[in-house]
Amino acid sequence: MTVYEIDVDTLLVQVKDLLEHGDPKSAAILLEGLRPADQAGVFDDLNPEEQDAILPKLNPEDSADILEELEEEDAVVVADRLRADKLATIMDHMEPDEAADLLGDIEPEKASRVLDAMLDATEVEPLLKHQDQTAGGLMTSASIVLKAGMSVKTAISYLRKLTPEDEDIYYLFVTDRADKLVGVVNLRSLVTQPATAKISDIMNTDVLSVQADADQEEAAKLMKRYDLLALPVVDNNQRLLGVITYDDSFDIMEDEATEDIYRLAGIPEETPSDLPLGEAVKKRLPWLVVNLFMALISASVLSLFESTISQMAALAAFFPIVAGVSGSAGTQTLTVTVRSIALGEIEPKNAIKVIANQFLLSLVNGIAVGLIIALIAVVWKQSLMLGMIAGIATLVNIISTAFTGVVIPLAIQKFKSDPALASPIIVTALTDALGYLVYLGLASALLAWLI
Amino acid sequence: MTVYEIDVDTLLVQVKDLLEHGDPKSAAILLEGLRPADQAGVFDDLNPEEQDAILPKLNPEDSADILEELEEEDAVVVADRLRADKLATIMDHMEPDEAADLLGDIEPEKASRVLDAMLDATEVEPLLKHQDQTAGGLMTSASIVLKAGMSVKTAISYLRKLTPEDEDIYYLFVTDRADKLVGVVNLRSLVTQPATAKISDIMNTDVLSVQADADQEEAAKLMKRYDLLALPVVDNNQRLLGVITYDDSFDIMEDEATEDIYRLAGIPEETPSDLPLGEAVKKRLPWLVVNLFMALISASVLSLFESTISQMAALAAFFPIVAGVSGSAGTQTLTVTVRSIALGEIEPKNAIKVIANQFLLSLVNGIAVGLIIALIAVVWKQSLMLGMIAGIATLVNIISTAFTGVVIPLAIQKFKSDPALASPIIVTALTDALGYLVYLGLASALLAWLI
Repeated sequence: MTVYEIDVDTLLVQVKDLLEHGDPKSAAILLEGLRPADQAGVFDDLNPEEQDAILPKLNPEDSADILEELEEEDAVVVADRLRADKLATIMDHMEPDEAADLLGDIEPEKASRVLDAMLDATEVEPLLKHQDQTAGGLMTSASIVLKAGMSVKTAISYLRKLTPEDEDIYYLFVTDRADKLVGVVNLRSLVTQPATAKISDIMNTDVLSVQADADQEEAAKLMKRYDLLALPVVDNNQRLLGVITYDDSFDIMEDEATEDIYRLAGIPEETPSDLPLGEAVKKRLPWLVVNLFMALISASVLSLFESTISQMAALAAFFPIVAGVSGSAGTQTLTVTVRSIALGEIEPKNAIKVIANQFLLSLVNGIAVGLIIALIAVVWKQSLMLGMIAGIATLVNIISTAFTGVVIPLAIQKFKSDPALASPIIVTALTDALGYLVYLGLASALLAWLI
Repeated sequence: MTVYEIDVDTLLVQVKDLLEHGDPKSAAILLEGLRPADQAGVFDDLNPEEQDAILPKLNPEDSADILEELEEEDAVVVADRLRADKLATIMDHMEPDEAADLLGDIEPEKASRVLDAMLDATEVEPLLKHQDQTAGGLMTSASIVLKAGMSVKTAISYLRKLTPEDEDIYYLFVTDRADKLVGVVNLRSLVTQPATAKISDIMNTDVLSVQADADQEEAAKLMKRYDLLALPVVDNNQRLLGVITYDDSFDIMEDEATEDIYRLAGIPEETPSDLPLGEAVKKRLPWLVVNLFMALISASVLSLFESTISQMAALAAFFPIVAGVSGSAGTQTLTVTVRSIALGEIEPKNAIKVIANQFLLSLVNGIAVGLIIALIAVVWKQSLMLGMIAGIATLVNIISTAFTGVVIPLAIQKFKSDPALASPIIVTALTDALGYLVYLGLASALLAWLI
């Protein structure tokens, strides 16, 4: 990566320099020499005045590439500053799915003016009907569709007519007279078959597809499972509506992983580190408040045992150890469960087996950690009783996480919610409260028995 | 997905039934009708005896597909039970990179016997030299390479000669007489150019490549950034050694995300939920022990303030709230930082800006949460003093996470380690210890001042 990053950084300085010296034309030529992802990288690092100076000098193809490669929210900001007719010209050079996404994000009144001014509006308009997050919302229009009745020769000359900007083609889908999807042809088999062969004879009829209203994650999983470069999207009558390409499925899998990472950390939605303050507060504060109220459960447990604590303040020294280690054990089990669910490795029907595995593991880990804690207590505080209490409490607590860390995410999954979202807070609160209850309950019972 | 899963489950029952009734041939035919991923899914759910009964009846192509699609560790178990000559026949039908990976995982003595018995050993052997985790270790041999001097017609007839099992081709790479990579030809442009055109005239000379010893993650990031379906791997002299295909880059990006998720939860390596007990303990226990010793820092802080706690046991009730909420705030900041580093969104040079952002965010969140905690303390414990102490401690503590949650992962990244691995434990321990110190320090100062 380093080589390319250095190139891009050097180029950014040159482009800024040229713009400062009033030569946007040369700056544009420099930018046009880069690959789309790098063009967008440089463009994104320019300030708005610089962007507005260079954009009119770029040809529409490169402007379209940049808008496609920018983060969605950045592309909207740039699009908002462009006149509707200028934006329409650029969007005519964008992939239909990217154009549809952008149109859906800018203000509706302007979007309809842009659509009116576009030459390729007919390719984009049907895509606007589908909901975000569905297969239909993700697909692009299938620019190249063969007919079952075509000959190989006709198909090849049809391919020749395509303009060079068209998206790379991976598979050629075949429809019948009613536009129903009936097969797929590999480009290589088209090249290597006799010119007179009929498409219906050389096509593979075993072709996977998804309904337009299916969840986008379902489509992405299908593509991942079967290593598909493109997945056709159909309506209820099996009519071909469009195609989802592998780069989209790649993005979705990465987004889902990021979402899981964030949700496990108590952030319901992705929050880039440069999010404006107001939005970042809106995304992160609510969870802290929920967490606070969940911590009240543990606080109430502790409150119950205030007299025990005043009697033996040394008990408090082991709070972070008992609670901390059990919390970590809970996080481990929970994370393994949530990620295994996301990767399709465990399902509710295996729950008993998974719990049994985690129970054994927790038993071993709990005994090991409990013994160490007991030893520390005996050596440090010279108290066998404290050692026994802390050790047993830790053991019980770690074992309990084998249940909560598996059952809670599986139960949430069963109710069609995302286990990554709600599980951590519930498991943490339960582990914590139970930990204090067992630890202080044992202590208070022993103290009562001794006195 | 559901449709396919039901199909696979039904088929599994049928296959098991046929095997039980001593008809492995029919079971094999049933299995051969599935897509590779589903074949592997069914096969994986058979017990070892059933697997051994059906495998000799499957044709080598399907056996090869199954070995490719199984999880690596499962494939090794199956391969270990096969005779070397039988395994060699199957491996001749595997993709060279998959065959090389499997050979590297079985015992060396058997691997060399298998290699001796393979017909395609020359394709696989060069791949064995490269380290795992490098671009070379990930590549497969480039089965179709065009020469710059070929005509389009020669190139097409060369394509025709390929056997149908060959991996899907995405791009056709072009080398010169010294086998140096000089360009790439799109299959579609090959189809649509005059038969007499020379490859060197129609090829695109702007082709990205990686060195064989580059990190595999670097290769995957490059493919993702530039939406590449295949990336050529070259030696120091720019000679073409092989090709990394998009499905590998997809797997790596997913593995890296999984690794981050696990590491953030304190599990250094991926641990599937069905890992054998011994290995699971080995992976999870050490981190619990490290965690335990880190918690000793907080325990020492608490120990310092034992007399303060005996004087005012109500203080203890707010431990889980002060520590819990600050811990959550720390996890949030840390996770945003770690994921942003992984996605290449922040770098050490932006550290000041990121810290400033997180500082402001923590200030707002800290004030809000601190006020709520103070209010709870006043209402519940009827103590303004307790409210002030708990509120201020939480505020100070949440603000501190804006520094630790950003600086620590960035520092670890700077020293070329994985920030996801060590950051959580350090940030948690520091937040926790500081939290108790501020909370109890304030309390003890105020108590001393009041008395």
